Amino acid sequence: MSHNIVLLPGDGIGAEVIYAAKDVLEAISKKYNRTFRFSSYDIGGVAIDQHGTPLPDETVEACKQADAVLLGAVGGPKWDNNPSDLRPERGLLGIRKALDLYANLRPVKGFPKLLHASPLKEEIIQGSDLLIVRELTGGLYFGQPSERIDNGNAVVDTLSYTKKEMERIIDKAFQSATLRNNHLTSVDKANVLESSKLWREIVEAKKAEYPDVTVDHVLVDAAAMKLITNPTQFDVIVTENMFGDILSDEASVLTGSLGMLPSASLAEDGVGLYEPAHGSAPDIAGQGIANPIAMILSSAMMLRYSFDMNQEADAIEVAVESVLNQNYHTADLKNEQGALVNTSEMTDLIVKAI
Amino acid sequence: MSHNIVLLPGDGIGAEVIYAAKDVLEAISKKYNRTFRFSSYDIGGVAIDQHGTPLPDETVEACKQADAVLLGAVGGPKWDNNPSDLRPERGLLGIRKALDLYANLRPVKGFPKLLHASPLKEEIIQGSDLLIVRELTGGLYFGQPSERIDNGNAVVDTLSYTKKEMERIIDKAFQSATLRNNHLTSVDKANVLESSKLWREIVEAKKAEYPDVTVDHVLVDAAAMKLITNPTQFDVIVTENMFGDILSDEASVLTGSLGMLPSASLAEDGVGLYEPAHGSAPDIAGQGIANPIAMILSSAMMLRYSFDMNQEADAIEVAVESVLNQNYHTADLKNEQGALVNTSEMTDLIVKAI
Ligand SMILES: CC(C)[C@H](C(=O)O)[C@@H](O)C(=O)O
Ligand SMILES: CC(C)[C@H](C(=O)O)[C@@H](O)C(=O)O
Repeated sequence: MSHNIVLLPGDGIGAEVIYAAKDVLEAISKKYNRTFRFSSYDIGGVAIDQHGTPLPDETVEACKQADAVLLGAVGGPKWDNNPSDLRPERGLLGIRKALDLYANLRPVKGFPKLLHASPLKEEIIQGSDLLIVRELTGGLYFGQPSERIDNGNAVVDTLSYTKKEMERIIDKAFQSATLRNNHLTSVDKANVLESSKLWREIVEAKKAEYPDVTVDHVLVDAAAMKLITNPTQFDVIVTENMFGDILSDEASVLTGSLGMLPSASLAEDGVGLYEPAHGSAPDIAGQGIANPIAMILSSAMMLRYSFDMNQEADAIEVAVESVLNQNYHTADLKNEQGALVNTSEMTDLIVKAI
Repeated sequence: MSHNIVLLPGDGIGAEVIYAAKDVLEAISKKYNRTFRFSSYDIGGVAIDQHGTPLPDETVEACKQADAVLLGAVGGPKWDNNPSDLRPERGLLGIRKALDLYANLRPVKGFPKLLHASPLKEEIIQGSDLLIVRELTGGLYFGQPSERIDNGNAVVDTLSYTKKEMERIIDKAFQSATLRNNHLTSVDKANVLESSKLWREIVEAKKAEYPDVTVDHVLVDAAAMKLITNPTQFDVIVTENMFGDILSDEASVLTGSLGMLPSASLAEDGVGLYEPAHGSAPDIAGQGIANPIAMILSSAMMLRYSFDMNQEADAIEVAVESVLNQNYHTADLKNEQGALVNTSEMTDLIVKAI
């Protein structure tokens, strides 16, 4: 049985890190006798340049046929002043919608060796290990109307959700909590938004199905504070799309390991898309110095979630940890001790450790 | 000439801190020969209990007649399960709208003596001094429709703004930047939201009127990261209501001085409302141990913005700083050295220092 993986390198450092992840997957394939087939398609800025659209039909088709998708990153200054429909981000939003990737899972966990790089004091960040479950295909990102009104003198965006959309992401988060420490924090703005009130009702109703899970409700503004003052209080956080965008980026810098954080975007019964939490980093693109670890750990998430290959996923995670424990680091990690390595050296070290 | 100040103590520690601020204002009145007249009205939970509504008409009327309003805090577990229109927060949202308090100014500045309480490493937080200018009467908080649709199977909230509403807050922020370090960071989500695109256009257009101000545009998710990794890069941040709610609370915990942070909510030509950045803290209410400094500094903002009494405002700020420098602190500040004092002792110390 072979697994068909679509690679979407995208822009900036996207290609550099995605081919690093491919190397690691090939090492896994040899060691565990697995067959992965890879094909590459364009998305984002590079797709605008090549095909006149950030999301060519053939890319969507290939992803729909695939067993899983790896995405590098999209965007860059070159396309920043393009009209909306010719912006790289449209490719990302488009593929999320096309594949119905409603559940974005973002684990945030500090590597003991890297905690020194955290902006937080060590006693605050130590021991933090959380998972943000963000709704990814609804809310303000996709609601209609989203347009100028009143002859251009006013503007409107729409935060809309169906009950079903809320239910499936909340259910996913409860499930995730049972696989971790049975603690779910639901984040909303129920003291102001009608959508948040419905959200909270659904969370409350779901509790009955997951009696082992302890549930807190936290307002989004308070959550933004607590992530900083007491990140260890969280296990799984679930929230809607826009709040999740803000809080997951906020959380991503807490451990000092942004270049290490993977993410998974999952459909109900379909394909999963895996990408690093970081962006396309145009400032260092093409130099071969990007940290490939977030992308490599994203491919480990793919093995775990899409292919049920837990042993293989573990092997990647253990290899990464062991290389870091030997004090190897890429330029972003600003480690004073140890050896500075570039993208391909880091990748080789991880491959060897596997 | 006398100044007519309406006090809205509200719930929890609200009353304790507001009467502390009144004591300080009375000391100012003696020293500088100013006449302040005070009257108190109900808002929030206490108003629900006394009048059956979180915002009685007489409260609105009194505020409209006042020269300035001081607000303690609203909310508490007692009213948490009330229906929407009988929740304390409705009083706050209602008074903002009734007085057209469109501009919420939230300075965040660390006190050197208190930086040890910051969750951030000292080298990161040191020197940070920023002002968040949040739009307070538009966006998702007030947009219509905000309701269940499709027989309760879906829900919608509306993020709406007129160009005028955006222009006045953006103008206020540019003005604020000229009074500080001439650096304005506009925060939006222009890669996704139509409202953010209009927002960004207006910021760009305004630049011409303020040639000395340097302007950056930062996406809200990136802003949530940068506040933590590099808070000193900011001077004035301007953003819409919901983003401002999240980012200003996030920013409020950075310096370790949440109990010290004031805020001002201003109308175009009308009255200003001043309140601490912290909430009603029901857990410590009634014990007389709340930190009154945020409220006292809010009254200093009132003197400065509403009454043009800069010398008097300075006197309060200097007095607070000198008491802190003597290592006096309330229980929230967790200072190991120095003397622990309660609300009234802290207030007396500040009064004496004036
Ligand atoms: C690029 C942008 C549209 C996207 C989002 O806001 O969802 C990104 O910030 C993310 O979090 O994946
Ligand atoms: C109480 C609540 C409605 C309010 C808001 O969200 O505006 C509060 O969080 C604030 O920031 O003043």
